[in-house]
Amino acid sequence: MQDLLDRAVSYGKAFIHEGRTASYIPELSKVDPNQLGISVVMADGRTISSGDYSSCFTVQSISKVVAFMLAIIDRGEEYVFSKVGMEATGDAFNSIVKLETAKPSKPLNPMINAGAIAIDSLISGKDPEEKFQRLLGFFRRLCSNDTLWYNELVYASEKETGYRNRALAHFMKDISILEGEVEEVLDLYFRQCSIQVDSRDIAMLGAVLAFDGLSPVTGEVLVPKKIARMVKTFMVTCGMYDGSGEFAIRVGIPAKSGVGGGIMAVVPGNMGIGVFSPALDSRGNSIGGVKALEFLSEKMELSIY
Amino acid sequence: MQDLLDRAVSYGKAFIHEGRTASYIPELSKVDPNQLGISVVMADGRTISSGDYSSCFTVQSISKVVAFMLAIIDRGEEYVFSKVGMEATGDAFNSIVKLETAKPSKPLNPMINAGAIAIDSLISGKDPEEKFQRLLGFFRRLCSNDTLWYNELVYASEKETGYRNRALAHFMKDISILEGEVEEVLDLYFRQCSIQVDSRDIAMLGAVLAFDGLSPVTGEVLVPKKIARMVKTFMVTCGMYDGSGEFAIRVGIPAKSGVGGGIMAVVPGNMGIGVFSPALDSRGNSIGGVKALEFLSEKMELSIY
Amino acid sequence: MQDLLDRAVSYGKAFIHEGRTASYIPELSKVDPNQLGISVVMADGRTISSGDYSSCFTVQSISKVVAFMLAIIDRGEEYVFSKVGMEATGDAFNSIVKLETAKPSKPLNPMINAGAIAIDSLISGKDPEEKFQRLLGFFRRLCSNDTLWYNELVYASEKETGYRNRALAHFMKDISILEGEVEEVLDLYFRQCSIQVDSRDIAMLGAVLAFDGLSPVTGEVLVPKKIARMVKTFMVTCGMYDGSGEFAIRVGIPAKSGVGGGIMAVVPGNMGIGVFSPALDSRGNSIGGVKALEFLSEKMELSIY
Amino acid sequence: MQDLLDRAVSYGKAFIHEGRTASYIPELSKVDPNQLGISVVMADGRTISSGDYSSCFTVQSISKVVAFMLAIIDRGEEYVFSKVGMEATGDAFNSIVKLETAKPSKPLNPMINAGAIAIDSLISGKDPEEKFQRLLGFFRRLCSNDTLWYNELVYASEKETGYRNRALAHFMKDISILEGEVEEVLDLYFRQCSIQVDSRDIAMLGAVLAFDGLSPVTGEVLVPKKIARMVKTFMVTCGMYDGSGEFAIRVGIPAKSGVGGGIMAVVPGNMGIGVFSPALDSRGNSIGGVKALEFLSEKMELSIY
Repeated sequence: MQDLLDRAVSYGKAFIHEGRTASYIPELSKVDPNQLGISVVMADGRTISSGDYSSCFTVQSISKVVAFMLAIIDRGEEYVFSKVGMEATGDAFNSIVKLETAKPSKPLNPMINAGAIAIDSLISGKDPEEKFQRLLGFFRRLCSNDTLWYNELVYASEKETGYRNRALAHFMKDISILEGEVEEVLDLYFRQCSIQVDSRDIAMLGAVLAFDGLSPVTGEVLVPKKIARMVKTFMVTCGMYDGSGEFAIRVGIPAKSGVGGGIMAVVPGNMGIGVFSPALDSRGNSIGGVKALEFLSEKMELSIY
Repeated sequence: MQDLLDRAVSYGKAFIHEGRTASYIPELSKVDPNQLGISVVMADGRTISSGDYSSCFTVQSISKVVAFMLAIIDRGEEYVFSKVGMEATGDAFNSIVKLETAKPSKPLNPMINAGAIAIDSLISGKDPEEKFQRLLGFFRRLCSNDTLWYNELVYASEKETGYRNRALAHFMKDISILEGEVEEVLDLYFRQCSIQVDSRDIAMLGAVLAFDGLSPVTGEVLVPKKIARMVKTFMVTCGMYDGSGEFAIRVGIPAKSGVGGGIMAVVPGNMGIGVFSPALDSRGNSIGGVKALEFLSEKMELSIY
Repeated sequence: MQDLLDRAVSYGKAFIHEGRTASYIPELSKVDPNQLGISVVMADGRTISSGDYSSCFTVQSISKVVAFMLAIIDRGEEYVFSKVGMEATGDAFNSIVKLETAKPSKPLNPMINAGAIAIDSLISGKDPEEKFQRLLGFFRRLCSNDTLWYNELVYASEKETGYRNRALAHFMKDISILEGEVEEVLDLYFRQCSIQVDSRDIAMLGAVLAFDGLSPVTGEVLVPKKIARMVKTFMVTCGMYDGSGEFAIRVGIPAKSGVGGGIMAVVPGNMGIGVFSPALDSRGNSIGGVKALEFLSEKMELSIY
Repeated sequence: MQDLLDRAVSYGKAFIHEGRTASYIPELSKVDPNQLGISVVMADGRTISSGDYSSCFTVQSISKVVAFMLAIIDRGEEYVFSKVGMEATGDAFNSIVKLETAKPSKPLNPMINAGAIAIDSLISGKDPEEKFQRLLGFFRRLCSNDTLWYNELVYASEKETGYRNRALAHFMKDISILEGEVEEVLDLYFRQCSIQVDSRDIAMLGAVLAFDGLSPVTGEVLVPKKIARMVKTFMVTCGMYDGSGEFAIRVGIPAKSGVGGGIMAVVPGNMGIGVFSPALDSRGNSIGGVKALEFLSEKMELSIY
């Protein structure tokens, strides 16, 4: 396995020059693009890593997976799906068009920005701080890492420039999808996106999902099986933005990417994978990360199809 | 003329029951729907009125005409049209779709909400208060009424519930159309929409436009001729929301409506007309007001075509 | 007047190099782009011309004005407007999007391709040939030219390559807007678009509209006044494709353009204008023609606003 | 297994009354809605069935799976994906909007109507008849049934009323996606949709895909493994129209439905499933069929996630 990961890192690095780091959040554009780290968490709880696996990055959209599971735990499936749909969109992750044109009027799924912001308004907590602490605590348990915290600079950068997300949130307030105060919900969203991890953390998150909610380290049930399966389904149909279909064909496993350069991938019943490489393709997916996963999928026959 | 106006009032009143007052701004829904007032300002500056001509209402979208002219005066035609387009939309007045899909990315015209908010960010002034005072002062001169002020309750109501307008404004901030602080621009927009007038005030505004910017009362040039003509053109192509085409066919004169129930209409070279009747049709136009104007247009052959 | 027209031709010619002839109909792209002709028909029936006024071109979309009037005469206002709307679109002339998204499902107006094809399905006649003969006969009377005929090469070229129009027609058949056989309706449309005229012919058509349906040559009523006014309104709101708003501001008179390079313009109560110059701007309007009309409008103060 | 299938049939039948047979193809609306048949083909090639498993129905969109595989075999992956994309749409199966708005301009995937029609234009053959015979032959081999033929009445009905599909095809001809003659391609499409099967046939097709292209009956390789995996991926992301996301969550296996009431489903490495029940939900999926599959998936833990 170590050898395979080393080769996946080499293979993926060859494509980094075709991408570029996220520019729409100024703080993200300052990262060194020439990094690629990969970690795998196995059924026995062991972690194997290669490359820049200890480099920190912000989770960004990978956090949508965590927030969605917590919202389902907090509010139940029926209520959550009255606020967000279950279908892929065919539009960009930050598109606002379907909020106006789709019937019924709600975000098409919890993995696009609109849906994820709506999901954040469903997290329980008596005030914004408690909501964030609950989300962070859940995140830490899933990653088996009690030191996770958010990157204040990235958070400030997102909060300052997040006009598109504000547009989505206010639109959803207008159509009665968003609950609570717009700026409070967005603050939670910006903080959760800025949580800082390395590839080992998200490999652990992926492993919990691979084993249907069970921690491969402690054996503890962290997420009900039904919810773990549900979120893996969303990762397949819309986890890689509007490149989800192509990723399903080329790699064939549930995965969620973030514009920070991370990809959290799941081989059901087998292992969790965390990859980090900050140069992105035109859809916002880590270009080296996707290539490394393609390599692993082909060599280890990981496709679920 | 008095007789004609009286008959127009009667004719229009017969259609009021088919409409309803605006519901999306709570304060507007409390108005008595069974009102219809009409005023005409002639070439010699005289005002002739009938019906509920002294009833007050908030100008709402009619203010877009005034703000647009001031923005052109302040910043020049070229700069203003780099921020908003010149074309009708075929979409609802508060639609956000084309902000995402149109190329180049800008509001299609200054009469839809997005365009009017963008226009407000162009009004000159060292701070929000000065901007509003300049706009209010210009409005007062155009209406020959120094007592105009805004309705605080309606303003508060719009400010509290204006989520869709906030979505538009934040989206435009994201695509670099909107200048300045979003909430400051929106505050100006909400205040301007809440300016309170009666049908005589907007008939006077219409008369100034009818005489290419010249006040029929004082003979003073209040707006350059070129700008007065330009705004009348926008009134024809997009002054009556997505009912502009039908209005052009049935009435045939430049007009701008507001969801407060007012319509400001212009018979070029001839007179200004102000109508007020708060029950609206499905597109947001005063239903009695449109009918009264249809009556006048047919009897007096007002169509410009 | 002759001098003004000569200067308008010179002025317009200076902009020809910024445009290009229509390429989507192969036959149209073969025309010499460096032509500009202009004709004016006055109240007394006299025609004054300048430049390439005797060059022939195909009317293309200008024919939509004629077909629309005939459909209203044949089927009545109410029925026609159950099939096409009255509003401008904000989309390109050949767009199909709103046929799917607009409610109710019908073309937004009779000047876009979808609307014009729907209109053609309403022309009376016992078979396709009779329908075309009726339309051609009406066209000839409006232009006071009994020799008008269609260009067989352009017709064949349009018929062969008109896939987008076929898509529009079949879509409208699906939503029960289009009556009759799709290919028969399209054949009428392609033939009507290929009718060959010079600038004098369309100036005469414009003059009939300028005088509310009355021929300035014979004094005969060719079109009921109400219909003439209606079609002038459509020319204002959507006669110049998605450049109608800008044209209204810069020129300010009802006009209809065609991708053959013609523009038919109307100065109500005053005169008809025909312009021809085949190089088009990005929206499909004759670039030299628009400029020549801008020149005339400014010099003669033609704006109706 | 027999007992499970019997119970799945009972369970599914309880939901039939919530749906209705397809009405847009007149011939399909005549079917008795109260049918539900299910068949499973196991690894050893045995078929187990229950309910109305011998009822015949037309495959409709299930044929898209077969045509897509043949097109890839005939023309290669690279060429095929230059004509159709790999992403889910979020729109209805017969939507035309994205053909106009998406960049690049091509159908988003081979499972929506536009994509499937484009795929049909890629099938090799010297004339339409040979193309159909090749497709039919491939279909027969995949179903291990040499007697498959198409239903002439349904074919005639689709051909007569297929205006929306014609609109899609002509639009794609206009943007140079469709190859060949529009009506010839559509004829192939209408014939393929009208191929008549029973639930055993499509269970066999599903089994071939379940075993990566290998026939569980003969052991023969009918489809290259890579192509079999690819098509299963498309079945996951867009096999159940705009209900694909919900189906992935509730059932969790690759499946393709048709408006004839069939669903072909695949349990990778395990078995193929064919279901038939003609009453459809609002998205065009067999309502009893989906429920029967939900039942089986839950009882047998079939989800791939």
